[in-house]
Amino acid sequence: MNAQGSTAQIDLNSDVGESFGSYTLGDDAAIFRSVSSANVACGFHGGDPSVIAQTCRDAAAAGITVGAHVAYRDLAGFGRRFLDCSPTELADDVLYQIGALEAMAHAAGTAVRYVKPHGALYNTIVHHTVHARAVVDAVKAYDPELPLLLLPGAVAAEIATAEGMRVVTEAFADRAYTPEGTLVSRREPGAVLLDEALVAERMVRLATENTLTAVDGTEIRVEAASICVHSDTPGAVAMAAAVRAGLEEAGVRIGSFA
Amino acid sequence: MNAQGSTAQIDLNSDVGESFGSYTLGDDAAIFRSVSSANVACGFHGGDPSVIAQTCRDAAAAGITVGAHVAYRDLAGFGRRFLDCSPTELADDVLYQIGALEAMAHAAGTAVRYVKPHGALYNTIVHHTVHARAVVDAVKAYDPELPLLLLPGAVAAEIATAEGMRVVTEAFADRAYTPEGTLVSRREPGAVLLDEALVAERMVRLATENTLTAVDGTEIRVEAASICVHSDTPGAVAMAAAVRAGLEEAGVRIGSFA
Amino acid sequence: MNAQGSTAQIDLNSDVGESFGSYTLGDDAAIFRSVSSANVACGFHGGDPSVIAQTCRDAAAAGITVGAHVAYRDLAGFGRRFLDCSPTELADDVLYQIGALEAMAHAAGTAVRYVKPHGALYNTIVHHTVHARAVVDAVKAYDPELPLLLLPGAVAAEIATAEGMRVVTEAFADRAYTPEGTLVSRREPGAVLLDEALVAERMVRLATENTLTAVDGTEIRVEAASICVHSDTPGAVAMAAAVRAGLEEAGVRIGSFA
Amino acid sequence: MNAQGSTAQIDLNSDVGESFGSYTLGDDAAIFRSVSSANVACGFHGGDPSVIAQTCRDAAAAGITVGAHVAYRDLAGFGRRFLDCSPTELADDVLYQIGALEAMAHAAGTAVRYVKPHGALYNTIVHHTVHARAVVDAVKAYDPELPLLLLPGAVAAEIATAEGMRVVTEAFADRAYTPEGTLVSRREPGAVLLDEALVAERMVRLATENTLTAVDGTEIRVEAASICVHSDTPGAVAMAAAVRAGLEEAGVRIGSFA
Repeated sequence: MNAQGSTAQIDLNSDVGESFGSYTLGDDAAIFRSVSSANVACGFHGGDPSVIAQTCRDAAAAGITVGAHVAYRDLAGFGRRFLDCSPTELADDVLYQIGALEAMAHAAGTAVRYVKPHGALYNTIVHHTVHARAVVDAVKAYDPELPLLLLPGAVAAEIATAEGMRVVTEAFADRAYTPEGTLVSRREPGAVLLDEALVAERMVRLATENTLTAVDGTEIRVEAASICVHSDTPGAVAMAAAVRAGLEEAGVRIGSFA
Repeated sequence: MNAQGSTAQIDLNSDVGESFGSYTLGDDAAIFRSVSSANVACGFHGGDPSVIAQTCRDAAAAGITVGAHVAYRDLAGFGRRFLDCSPTELADDVLYQIGALEAMAHAAGTAVRYVKPHGALYNTIVHHTVHARAVVDAVKAYDPELPLLLLPGAVAAEIATAEGMRVVTEAFADRAYTPEGTLVSRREPGAVLLDEALVAERMVRLATENTLTAVDGTEIRVEAASICVHSDTPGAVAMAAAVRAGLEEAGVRIGSFA
Repeated sequence: MNAQGSTAQIDLNSDVGESFGSYTLGDDAAIFRSVSSANVACGFHGGDPSVIAQTCRDAAAAGITVGAHVAYRDLAGFGRRFLDCSPTELADDVLYQIGALEAMAHAAGTAVRYVKPHGALYNTIVHHTVHARAVVDAVKAYDPELPLLLLPGAVAAEIATAEGMRVVTEAFADRAYTPEGTLVSRREPGAVLLDEALVAERMVRLATENTLTAVDGTEIRVEAASICVHSDTPGAVAMAAAVRAGLEEAGVRIGSFA
Repeated sequence: MNAQGSTAQIDLNSDVGESFGSYTLGDDAAIFRSVSSANVACGFHGGDPSVIAQTCRDAAAAGITVGAHVAYRDLAGFGRRFLDCSPTELADDVLYQIGALEAMAHAAGTAVRYVKPHGALYNTIVHHTVHARAVVDAVKAYDPELPLLLLPGAVAAEIATAEGMRVVTEAFADRAYTPEGTLVSRREPGAVLLDEALVAERMVRLATENTLTAVDGTEIRVEAASICVHSDTPGAVAMAAAVRAGLEEAGVRIGSFA
């Protein structure tokens, strides 16, 4: 508990398992010291079976919840490019990825407990109804109890909710917000926050009061049961550690939503 | 029951789900009229997620048992080329494939009920102890109850048996056998049998008496709870139908071993 | 001139070399009896190096001109899905494909003599300025003399022409045209023409008078130095043969534009 | 001659262009300050078209000779795993890679001036006659004047020489040698040399006297017109710089053999 007596809890999630063959990406061991949820690559944008297996074992050993970080089939583009596949192709690709990860997680003594779309797929299903429905259909076909981790306001969130599924929304630790509650575009100055102390303080307010200060100074309400922190640079890993330390100091419990 | 009062039962298995994108391979619909077990490609030598999904739905609708046809990661070579991967890589690749197929099977209302290695992997683990153990380890890690469908005498069969796992061995309908009970090499004349009536008759004897006539006329004992029939040519599909008809006429029950 | 003493000439092109590993697509040997130009797949949507090599040898033996059928990197989607890659990625992907094919063509005693984008890329650069420019840039960087085979009116054609490059436009043998000279959408009834005699007659008029009858009966002018015929079905191959026979009967010379 | 008035010349080569998509491997910019020849990945074990294009531009700008670093088709294994492909498949894969790289090199104002097999392919063609011949055939079909960079004593070197082709052999800067002139296995202690000064001194003797001291103190003769230095770790890059500095100090001219 903090001064005011908070019993707040929040999840910290990050992308891991994205290395591939001889290619190493991110510092998963370091980020595992900060997060409660691991978005594990499933082989379509990154991650090969051995990387995924090791990531699942490491997550299990650290008590971190495993989620399926599903993506368009695009290793060359790291899943960051929109691919105009049919809804059937997309749904089947998502299902395939969840299943592949589940086997690796199962062998590591854990399980897939949520699904978070990656990269271009994550951004596309904010507005692309057909792809959004395909992702929701795939997750529902696999397990209607499996929560989806999404951007607040995503059309995929509406569809999943209407299907009776659980949606968890997330905030981005190092991003500035507009007064409307959306992310400031990366093309704008000040879109990315670099001050660890400030970011940590913002995340404490988010966790305890569901409130953030927008770029124009407005106080906005942000519903998020999880905070996304990055893992791909040393600075990102340090930021994640600062957020965790700040939350713990404020008495916020860090734990998976799943 | 046949004349002597046979209550014999045998499984008929074939490779399916090997189409990929715009590429169609085999006539799965036709072969599904003959077999009791479907070796479904898992995406590493053939099969894309949508092909696999459709194959699982078709198998489920036809009451055919689904098995994971796992392979080396080699789409360009259709899994027919030995790949000198490490045992860890191989075990993880196998596990990944089983899980991916399981998700598709599950969404189709069925499940993966056995594992049969494909192509070069099938042949390699007849003698390659390290790869054989990797495959066995992967299946065991996934589910120690899952049977492996293998060539009689394969080193993988010994390893799996020693691990307390169930091994099912198969015979090849259209192949001649040596007096020692091994397959006559395809390079030898007469290695492949084309006479449907003869093949059907041989398979009836196999199912009812565990006996085959070798190339030199010797009667040999062949232990096989499953018969492999091919699906990749119109002739192969007709052969499969002839084998099924012959078995049914002789009163042999055709059904999965799983 | 036409009828009694035509000196008209036109090219017939078709997609070939699209098989991959164990997957066979199209009947290249049959289509090679009709066409003068071969759009050879380069490995990104179809075609593996051995398929490509054999296709180049067959084209060289038949005296057929080789063109690079470049595509988005999407084997699973056969290059039929838009991929939102960056212009740099696209230009480099196109250049890579041309070079790979050139080596195979060179070893077969021929050479790449034109570039035709495939599938989604072909359709995208009709209107997508950024991707159109990337394709043009890549071809120009490789060889500014290499002609591009495109849809009349494509924005890529304008860009290439402005760059001083040669553009060849094509008509589609089996497609109906609107009064505006564009293709009738495949979703409309009558979009695809199946009557071989009619199609052959239309192509003779195109070759000799640059004229086609649109769906509403209007006579329209269509500038095309090449006619695209399909190769992926037995019917398509027969149609190609009919078009060739019709053109020859009418005294039209069939030959590459390159 | 050496010491006071050496006219010795040697080439320094290193592997570059192995990054892929979002995955960065090696520090090509740093290694380009030391080497005279760049073994550029061609996309089969590493390197995507944009990485390859940039690498060619950087090599051209730095006056470094470009070679094709051809490999088995195995991105997941980084070309380090033997793949039992047919000689036709291998020859076509090699040809495809050379051509793809040539287009990128050409657009960058340079050209492919030699071929060096990578990883498992490099090691396999030391002894595997069928794969060795396939590689030689491919290079010869592309350009019989193109030299091959190989391990001394490789069966591929014999085959290429018998075909009238030029073979250049290389020494490994950081490896210990047996009295027979072969590399000490990496499994043996002392196989890899870490002392920069010692390695630099050895390479000067190699360049000026074709002599190295073997692990047992024997002086051995090593014919090498090129020295391979690694680029994949900061230590390797520093080692390359030390070798270059040592050679220059000793008056050895560093330049391509091509």
